[in-house]
Amino acid sequence: MTLKAAPLRLSTTSASFDAEFKARLHWSADADAAIEKVVADILADVQTRGDEAVLEYTNRFDKLDAKTLPELELTQAELKAAFESLPAAQRDALEAAARRVRSYHEAQKKASGESWSYRDTDGTLLGQKVTPLDRVGIYVPGGKAAYPSSVLMNAIPAHVAGVGEIIMVVPTPKGEKNQLVLAAAYVAGVTRGFTIGGAQAVAALAYGTATVPAVDKITGPGNAYVAAAKRRVFGTVGIDMIAGPSEILVLADGTTPPEWVAMDLFSQAEHDELAQSILLCPDAAYIDRVQAEIDRLLPAMPRAEIIAASLNGRGALIHTKSMEEACEISNRIAPEHLEVSSSEPNRWEPLLRHAGAIFLGAFTSESLGDYCAGPNHVLPTSGTARFSSPLGVYDFQKRSSLIEVSEAGAQVLGPVAVTLAEGEGLQAHAEAARMRLRKI
Amino acid sequence: MTLKAAPLRLSTTSASFDAEFKARLHWSADADAAIEKVVADILADVQTRGDEAVLEYTNRFDKLDAKTLPELELTQAELKAAFESLPAAQRDALEAAARRVRSYHEAQKKASGESWSYRDTDGTLLGQKVTPLDRVGIYVPGGKAAYPSSVLMNAIPAHVAGVGEIIMVVPTPKGEKNQLVLAAAYVAGVTRGFTIGGAQAVAALAYGTATVPAVDKITGPGNAYVAAAKRRVFGTVGIDMIAGPSEILVLADGTTPPEWVAMDLFSQAEHDELAQSILLCPDAAYIDRVQAEIDRLLPAMPRAEIIAASLNGRGALIHTKSMEEACEISNRIAPEHLEVSSSEPNRWEPLLRHAGAIFLGAFTSESLGDYCAGPNHVLPTSGTARFSSPLGVYDFQKRSSLIEVSEAGAQVLGPVAVTLAEGEGLQAHAEAARMRLRKI
Repeated sequence: MTLKAAPLRLSTTSASFDAEFKARLHWSADADAAIEKVVADILADVQTRGDEAVLEYTNRFDKLDAKTLPELELTQAELKAAFESLPAAQRDALEAAARRVRSYHEAQKKASGESWSYRDTDGTLLGQKVTPLDRVGIYVPGGKAAYPSSVLMNAIPAHVAGVGEIIMVVPTPKGEKNQLVLAAAYVAGVTRGFTIGGAQAVAALAYGTATVPAVDKITGPGNAYVAAAKRRVFGTVGIDMIAGPSEILVLADGTTPPEWVAMDLFSQAEHDELAQSILLCPDAAYIDRVQAEIDRLLPAMPRAEIIAASLNGRGALIHTKSMEEACEISNRIAPEHLEVSSSEPNRWEPLLRHAGAIFLGAFTSESLGDYCAGPNHVLPTSGTARFSSPLGVYDFQKRSSLIEVSEAGAQVLGPVAVTLAEGEGLQAHAEAARMRLRKI
Repeated sequence: MTLKAAPLRLSTTSASFDAEFKARLHWSADADAAIEKVVADILADVQTRGDEAVLEYTNRFDKLDAKTLPELELTQAELKAAFESLPAAQRDALEAAARRVRSYHEAQKKASGESWSYRDTDGTLLGQKVTPLDRVGIYVPGGKAAYPSSVLMNAIPAHVAGVGEIIMVVPTPKGEKNQLVLAAAYVAGVTRGFTIGGAQAVAALAYGTATVPAVDKITGPGNAYVAAAKRRVFGTVGIDMIAGPSEILVLADGTTPPEWVAMDLFSQAEHDELAQSILLCPDAAYIDRVQAEIDRLLPAMPRAEIIAASLNGRGALIHTKSMEEACEISNRIAPEHLEVSSSEPNRWEPLLRHAGAIFLGAFTSESLGDYCAGPNHVLPTSGTARFSSPLGVYDFQKRSSLIEVSEAGAQVLGPVAVTLAEGEGLQAHAEAARMRLRKI
């Protein structure tokens, strides 16, 4: 049987468009009660028994035979050796990517992550002090989805922010260590690493054990157990986000070679069967050409089955009335990756309000952004770009308000505070302000 | 019986200090299983039955007798009338506070909330576009802790960010509307308001109903049910934070009138019995003087019983070896409010790494900051200042990465992406980058 990938064809002029579109987008992150229970038990156990519990779960789930938790620490020498064992092309590529990612995040820090203050007319100083987190944990998935690029994307912004210690955890099922992941940790400047994963690794980072230091925030993607554990420890530590399946939306005006668009849709679909690839285009004939390229290119793809399952199950090629309408629909989706595959991308960009990352013009394939353009590839999924942002330096910093009221300022602010505090029935608040007023 | 407030006396030179200090700080936000179940049911019910469910829960919990949900909408005319009904002093105070809060948040937006981009040497454009959220919900507690100042502190940063619609919900137990809260909503520019509260209000905002529009993010404090509901809808919408009891830490060098410090400790303690007030000071005689002022001032306070319960149960007066050590201990606490009550506050400020807001110098009482200095009074509690920030304009904005790779840039980035993608076994990613390379 020939493998076929036929994303759902939709047209905005159809009466059933809204319903079909909504059904296609549907994805539920609802918590699974069984997973919740397992995770709650693991967290409680690690909180009580520390190292011992982490060791037991790791040996059991990852089929290891470690005697103590310290055995599972990755030494700096091991990270360095992994880097040095790579072919030169991979070493160079990792370093080139790291350089660009670092330089982008340095610009980000400069643009939005510096302390600021000013004095108002009565001499009162107001501002914010921006400081790095002391210690963060980054979760790196092991097994089939072990991505060294994710190590760079999590660790480098933390490093640029000035985080004191970056602790990496990465599960190694059956003891298999991914040398590229270890090498990326070396390049990115990870402080310490442990070959532990799952809810037990999240618990160790959140609560601390004799061997694993407690961190202030945990970032990085993981499976359903890791996601459930992160959600539960949120509050004890910070977390980045709960990631859903990856998505791409391509807005095409018909000027890009259709094989480029087909391959860009594939590059999302190859992640996993739940990944979502959508094309929006006002030119029906162009959509046919993209479908023809999908048919032509699919057989040669090593991950053809995953691509086909993703495109058949969740993909869509949507014919719109215009590029303007395509932009409107894109805003409803709030996609993780948004390619504006157009000869005039800057005409459409101002219309695009919600997206994790916007790739402008035909040469900007998502894959260039994923690896090495510089911006972060950890992006809000499942429509959460409506209210959240790419992982960035700001995720590894926090702000403290600064207020220094002068004696003159206290005379101006005091009466306002007194009136409002009394309105709220908080007499000590009022009295504290009143005490700072000059006795006349 | 005379009411007595005696915060625990500790000294860092005591052998048992660490244990006593840790015990005093302990506060657990652990989820209550019974509350979790009730909240899960309410959320599911509102998701299914919409308006009808919200109406039923509101009538039941707030003892109302509304026939339809639209009846519970607050009209703009009602908000305006509430404002106009206030005494002139309250109107002026609300407007003065709003003006200062707005001006501070405008500075914040300018300092860290603007879009930016640059071109690198190969012509590739990199940057971030900062955009406001479309629609946010702000939760305002009703009943005994109805604070108009919180309306300003939540709505104004949203407004400054450029949020399109600000939806306020505020429960009105037994139908009692707090006129100051309504007036604050008028001053702050709330778009629509509903007199609903609890988990049902959070659900209505997260999922939308026929009457209440779905929002992108929900901010604002609430009781345990509201907190549990916010935690559960996180992911469907954004949330700000899960607030614990309020805290103040005063770092004193002994130069501030001790009655000012005593009243500042009271102003936190009067919020509720779980609020925490801590003094750190290297001068034992000064600590005695503060305790004497506590004894002298307490009887006259209208909320003396709450203050005494809070100080006796959770307060502490800690004698430190030095101001430097006091700063170190403050960093371990990561307090919500941190007063540097010293004649040289700028000597100590650089040593303070973790705090929601830092109040510098004796004239900067926390109450001035709470109401009208300008910075936000919604601050991270329970040590979460280690990894989170005051509510701000940035909470009502999100970022989209911008990448525009030139043809020349694609030649530079392509080989790096190809190498890394192949290293990760993602051939479609590699192929998408390769297609953009010039055929030679």
